[in-house]
Amino acid sequence: MNTTPKSACLVVGAGDATGAAIARAFAREGLTACLVRRPRHAKELEKLAASIRETGGAAVALPADARDEDAVAALVENIETEIGPIEVAVFNIGANVFFPIAETTARVYRKVWEMGAYAGFLTGREAAKRMLTRGRGTIIFTGATASLRGGAGFAAFAGAKQALRALAQSMARELGPKNIHVAHVVIDGAIDTDFIRGIMPDVDGKRAEDAILSPEAIAENYVMLHRQPRMAWTHELDLRPWKEKW
Amino acid sequence: MNTTPKSACLVVGAGDATGAAIARAFAREGLTACLVRRPRHAKELEKLAASIRETGGAAVALPADARDEDAVAALVENIETEIGPIEVAVFNIGANVFFPIAETTARVYRKVWEMGAYAGFLTGREAAKRMLTRGRGTIIFTGATASLRGGAGFAAFAGAKQALRALAQSMARELGPKNIHVAHVVIDGAIDTDFIRGIMPDVDGKRAEDAILSPEAIAENYVMLHRQPRMAWTHELDLRPWKEKW
Amino acid sequence: MNTTPKSACLVVGAGDATGAAIARAFAREGLTACLVRRPRHAKELEKLAASIRETGGAAVALPADARDEDAVAALVENIETEIGPIEVAVFNIGANVFFPIAETTARVYRKVWEMGAYAGFLTGREAAKRMLTRGRGTIIFTGATASLRGGAGFAAFAGAKQALRALAQSMARELGPKNIHVAHVVIDGAIDTDFIRGIMPDVDGKRAEDAILSPEAIAENYVMLHRQPRMAWTHELDLRPWKEKW
Amino acid sequence: MNTTPKSACLVVGAGDATGAAIARAFAREGLTACLVRRPRHAKELEKLAASIRETGGAAVALPADARDEDAVAALVENIETEIGPIEVAVFNIGANVFFPIAETTARVYRKVWEMGAYAGFLTGREAAKRMLTRGRGTIIFTGATASLRGGAGFAAFAGAKQALRALAQSMARELGPKNIHVAHVVIDGAIDTDFIRGIMPDVDGKRAEDAILSPEAIAENYVMLHRQPRMAWTHELDLRPWKEKW
Repeated sequence: MNTTPKSACLVVGAGDATGAAIARAFAREGLTACLVRRPRHAKELEKLAASIRETGGAAVALPADARDEDAVAALVENIETEIGPIEVAVFNIGANVFFPIAETTARVYRKVWEMGAYAGFLTGREAAKRMLTRGRGTIIFTGATASLRGGAGFAAFAGAKQALRALAQSMARELGPKNIHVAHVVIDGAIDTDFIRGIMPDVDGKRAEDAILSPEAIAENYVMLHRQPRMAWTHELDLRPWKEKW
Repeated sequence: MNTTPKSACLVVGAGDATGAAIARAFAREGLTACLVRRPRHAKELEKLAASIRETGGAAVALPADARDEDAVAALVENIETEIGPIEVAVFNIGANVFFPIAETTARVYRKVWEMGAYAGFLTGREAAKRMLTRGRGTIIFTGATASLRGGAGFAAFAGAKQALRALAQSMARELGPKNIHVAHVVIDGAIDTDFIRGIMPDVDGKRAEDAILSPEAIAENYVMLHRQPRMAWTHELDLRPWKEKW
Repeated sequence: MNTTPKSACLVVGAGDATGAAIARAFAREGLTACLVRRPRHAKELEKLAASIRETGGAAVALPADARDEDAVAALVENIETEIGPIEVAVFNIGANVFFPIAETTARVYRKVWEMGAYAGFLTGREAAKRMLTRGRGTIIFTGATASLRGGAGFAAFAGAKQALRALAQSMARELGPKNIHVAHVVIDGAIDTDFIRGIMPDVDGKRAEDAILSPEAIAENYVMLHRQPRMAWTHELDLRPWKEKW
Repeated sequence: MNTTPKSACLVVGAGDATGAAIARAFAREGLTACLVRRPRHAKELEKLAASIRETGGAAVALPADARDEDAVAALVENIETEIGPIEVAVFNIGANVFFPIAETTARVYRKVWEMGAYAGFLTGREAAKRMLTRGRGTIIFTGATASLRGGAGFAAFAGAKQALRALAQSMARELGPKNIHVAHVVIDGAIDTDFIRGIMPDVDGKRAEDAILSPEAIAENYVMLHRQPRMAWTHELDLRPWKEKW
């Protein structure tokens, strides 16, 4: 395990292209990218860590279930003692599902909240505890269109996303005056990921004309938020492609 | 058990003064008030039902844990077969807690969501299923200031309340065109309840000058929402005393 | 001129079906409807007043340009001395226009603001001055979908409507604690008026299935807001037909 | 007059420290800063232009009344023919006033709107016309806390600011798909300017602990918005010091 004393960037939800791009971007900033996704994806996670190291960045794969309180506490303890102080924590798990209300099972409703909001609470809280002792740090939550609007069929997803936004606001108001920058990024539009390529036609055409969000462009904004001097912090910004309807 | 064929008004969260006033108000409208709160409060619930019946209304105490999927399904089945079709469903459970983020336990965070959002989902979904078969009904969710703003120390409460608001919006957009009126009431200010009397000084002085929300005045708005003709439905309204700062 | 001592309801923007329905509804409540629209429509205004009187209500036609400060001051002075104290003031002027930004003339942009916001300010301020001396009254502003969202092509209309909403909020926060109820009604959807009948197909079909807002149903909500006891005032509510997409 | 063919950055409202910092920041990016404020401040404006040129930037003082349609049209024509294509247009005029509603004169209400919203419309429209012919450009509007909330005493200021926000939203939705980036920056907190130093105690103490917004830090965000690649544009972001209550 990496034991350099440099600061760590915790990325919970490093399983999609956005999380990977965020991890790479902070590794380029000189932080050790601490990559988290569920244990059953440990191999892919290790592959991502290796690819970051190949380009000269520091990265470690730390498979964990972010919905498990003990696992998140152990994860943060491990990073802080073995890797370095968590300078940046990014929570990037979503769980977009669409069901008419009568077909939304209790299992789905609960799981979407556990992945999208409860895991965000555990991640944010554990990171905040450490940052509070040092009086510094950045915590960024990934939001979505549903963070602002409960559309038909999105009771579960919008519920999780709006709970996450409430968490981000509450933490920002409490932790800002303690020198911890808490931000919420509303991603409004499809992102160029493997998942989207499976369900959306002509992604290459959209990419060719910049009409789909690129994970790299999103990641740049996370780094920008982290770099903002504390006399002018942003809590919330939206991101969408130029052609997006909204 | 009451077996008259008249319509039912399900009130989940009939344990506080607001829930009780809502139940009384709909009983006055001629609906059978179906009062729900946790089984350990079965006696108080029965007392409330009796007090409604004494004034000529129909009411039944139906203790149940609204966070239990099977219990909610059985509750709704029971009402529909034994009491009458659910014409109105009101979800009125809150769980206001205040903790700095580092002191917010996972147990509290989860429990507040289960009471304030998950139980609302179960109630709303089960009521909606029945209303969809009849193509009519009213579902009202009780919100709070935290439904719109995540204040410092309110990560859990605001998370639950904003998830509930997302649910209400999503259900309204899906179910409105199916003739089911879904509304969300943002209660902004202290309500004159036993709980508030225990923590707020001079409630009598405030009541004397109408500076505290009365459960009866709140309840009137729920009835008004139910009565709105479908060519002009309100999805959201706020309620606060004239002197309230906001 | 009517000189009964009963209270007055000032309706600025009594020229469309909504304003007329609001005036009728408050006349039914026993107030003298004081109908205002531009002098060039004096005849139609008098016809409306007569129709209200025919049904037993009190009404006077008071043509005036609500964008003219002196005219509004004189109007209010006239009502207060000759008719009765203004118990309710309703501002109901809109000016919906659609233009791409490059084709929005300065004249249009300014005129839409003067009609939709500046006239609202003059009406609200003059009414508030009198209500402040009595320590009571209700002021209601008519909003629209554009009050919440600046859509493409609606720079002028949304600008006026959002300025009006800001006015309503500001007045509510200042005047609420002085026992003056200030409310804002967001009307989201087409209203069954002559204007709409000219541009929308199948209004009769929509009316037959309650899929278009009726002026009467809107007006009932204005009366409801006026009647709310001060321990539970609503500042904002939305109104839309059950089938409306939003 | 500067006749280099490089692109221009129009800054309307270059009279305060924020406008000056924005102009300097875009001059550092290689654009010619076109500084606009009212003619009676022509000398100060020239001084600012000179100070930018001294540090190697390009800048011209172009005194004009931004509330005058012809003046704005002539200004933009002048820049486009004599200086260079307007690549960036920033509208930075505010007019914060505080008056109880009864003491808000029609003159003040109108003037605050003319400065804060109408001038923004003229600036935005004239810039957009040129940008539309080229299919590129950035337009940024400066907002404030009042852009989101109509506080007591702020009817005029919040009215202007919310009208400006509506304009920004409307233009963004129309012009985004035409490759013109329209953004709105919500500045929430006092800015370290001469004006603030006159009314707020201990500005030096606040500056020492980064508890007041610095014009330079604000300006960096305007440049960042301009640089965003079009596959991920931000429409709105907020800026406040770490210690600010909100």
